[in-house]
Amino acid sequence: MAPLPLGSTIGILGSGQLGRMLAMASAQLGFKCHIYADASGPAFDVAAAHTVAPYDDLETVKAFAASVDVVTYEFENVPLETAAAALSVRPVAPGPKALEVSQDRLTEKLFLSELGIPLAPFAEVNSIDDLKIAAEKIGRPAILKTRRLGYDGKGQVRINPTSDLMQAHAEISSAPAILEGLVKFQREVSVLAVRDQAGQIAFYDIPENSHKDGILDTSTVPSTISLQTQQHAHTIARKIADALSFVGVLTVELFLTGDNTPVPLVVNEIAPRVHNSGHWTIDACAVSQFENHIRSITGWPLGDTARHSDATMTNLIGPEINAAPTNAAEPGVCVHIYGKRDARPGRKMGHMTKLAPKSAS
Amino acid sequence: MAPLPLGSTIGILGSGQLGRMLAMASAQLGFKCHIYADASGPAFDVAAAHTVAPYDDLETVKAFAASVDVVTYEFENVPLETAAAALSVRPVAPGPKALEVSQDRLTEKLFLSELGIPLAPFAEVNSIDDLKIAAEKIGRPAILKTRRLGYDGKGQVRINPTSDLMQAHAEISSAPAILEGLVKFQREVSVLAVRDQAGQIAFYDIPENSHKDGILDTSTVPSTISLQTQQHAHTIARKIADALSFVGVLTVELFLTGDNTPVPLVVNEIAPRVHNSGHWTIDACAVSQFENHIRSITGWPLGDTARHSDATMTNLIGPEINAAPTNAAEPGVCVHIYGKRDARPGRKMGHMTKLAPKSAS
Repeated sequence: MAPLPLGSTIGILGSGQLGRMLAMASAQLGFKCHIYADASGPAFDVAAAHTVAPYDDLETVKAFAASVDVVTYEFENVPLETAAAALSVRPVAPGPKALEVSQDRLTEKLFLSELGIPLAPFAEVNSIDDLKIAAEKIGRPAILKTRRLGYDGKGQVRINPTSDLMQAHAEISSAPAILEGLVKFQREVSVLAVRDQAGQIAFYDIPENSHKDGILDTSTVPSTISLQTQQHAHTIARKIADALSFVGVLTVELFLTGDNTPVPLVVNEIAPRVHNSGHWTIDACAVSQFENHIRSITGWPLGDTARHSDATMTNLIGPEINAAPTNAAEPGVCVHIYGKRDARPGRKMGHMTKLAPKSAS
Repeated sequence: MAPLPLGSTIGILGSGQLGRMLAMASAQLGFKCHIYADASGPAFDVAAAHTVAPYDDLETVKAFAASVDVVTYEFENVPLETAAAALSVRPVAPGPKALEVSQDRLTEKLFLSELGIPLAPFAEVNSIDDLKIAAEKIGRPAILKTRRLGYDGKGQVRINPTSDLMQAHAEISSAPAILEGLVKFQREVSVLAVRDQAGQIAFYDIPENSHKDGILDTSTVPSTISLQTQQHAHTIARKIADALSFVGVLTVELFLTGDNTPVPLVVNEIAPRVHNSGHWTIDACAVSQFENHIRSITGWPLGDTARHSDATMTNLIGPEINAAPTNAAEPGVCVHIYGKRDARPGRKMGHMTKLAPKSAS
């Protein structure tokens, strides 16, 4: 596909902060944005147009697609029929295969497993009997996770040696699930890869991530993982991106097990999109994950992913956002506020990135 | 004034690329934007609301002001009665005094002159007789400039030793004007200062500017001017900003004369706003000129103006914008496209900033 002409319109499914930051990156490149979502959201305020309609209103989805030049999305739970309806009218990137794989934990595990990607042990759980067998096979502690619609620790229950399996199964409403062995890990990192339409891949430096209450708290670059392990992580991400014929930013979350093995990495999950652990790229790189996503889906050349500064990104969750004006006064701090009205506990309201001169690493 | 609360709305007079980049900086801080302009423009695509009406429609201006929490502007030619109408309803920053001074070259020169700021010799020209006398007094070459509405070299005629004064006067339609002695200068630089509501001032590094066909072509940091001269330039800008009780970003364009004088600087003109020669701050600083302008007018703390990278900003004028997808592939290049439809010659369509590791200077 030739690069989209100047002034083309990007269609984005989803109106959250990722859609908002994608829209702002689109604007930087002179593209207009049209946001489609089932409810008003922070992306509307920075886009030239928006449509509010259910995702399964396929006629409205098609009309939306017809009004834009390419369609992308900010979340992996876009219904497959929505993506198909858009694709019947305009290119959709990343393609539906990436959605299909990443919106169902079982499909994702099987897909990754077939590629030979290192994973935690897992088993399908469709009933309490399945759960009993799986818990025997995998051992405890383990995590029971719904196959669909989990994020930020939601839809997950930890199974400890003393946990009641009936109760755990009830806690996820007996939804189709997987049981996953708990990985003892030293660190969690993520690969932020961008793949263009010709199959070229560029990587950002790998951030090291920390969580608080199941939600990403900080991402730091440079990480402390070895160059060799970074290269292993890149190889894993490349294999996944190639197998999906991926176009756009692909995120691969990995655990660093610290085992004395040649590849001490286990893939946690993948996201076919820009990712919270890559927000530091806005301030610490010439071209951010958001802009490179837009560049790849529009057929523009990928931009420089090199980092000019060290950076630590910290999420501002719930009422933490009220400290933003104070945080904003600190040297090297870049504040990003998503414009959400209600600072509910656990809600991602913004983030800040603290820059420091690039270390030698 | 206490900091504006999260989610407040910024009103911006003007819908061009400066308004667009101000709106994007506002969005980064979680503020909504309402753009007021007499015609549709590129800022509309990234703002939550817009109003199209003449600037002298004061009732509509007041209704606009009532819908926002603070009013600012992207251009110094906002009519004074427009600013006054807005100010009758909401705070306007920078204040009307800055507009009054900067939208009339004679008023500006007299104001600067009273402050003891070094200027080129100048004289008021209201008639051909005035022009003859001024040309005698100031000498040739000199520049005849209309008092109002000049930008990018428009409204200016050079008076050479052989120029016909009648013809020159006709070329500016005999408009009220000044004649200004031509300064022989080595370099042109600009001070980008931001002053907050408490009178604190922060400076960006001083870029060195080059022009092509009367339009800014490049701005480069670091400049090659001495530290002492930079400090002199800062002192001049501070004096001007303080005298105007300025709130926001103030730009002071200066010529470096290279004379063997203690302060080899002459002020060319001032702009009570973010400036093309500061566009590199988006990519080379933690907090850009646009964001610091928004921070100052909203009572937020000023952000870090330090530069993490060396940078050269190059304007993309007219059809040069068509090379943007090619430029975008270069390492360290950040492309900014304003989303204007018609790439007319001489029109500012976008810019690019090339980053390089920060030099020792």
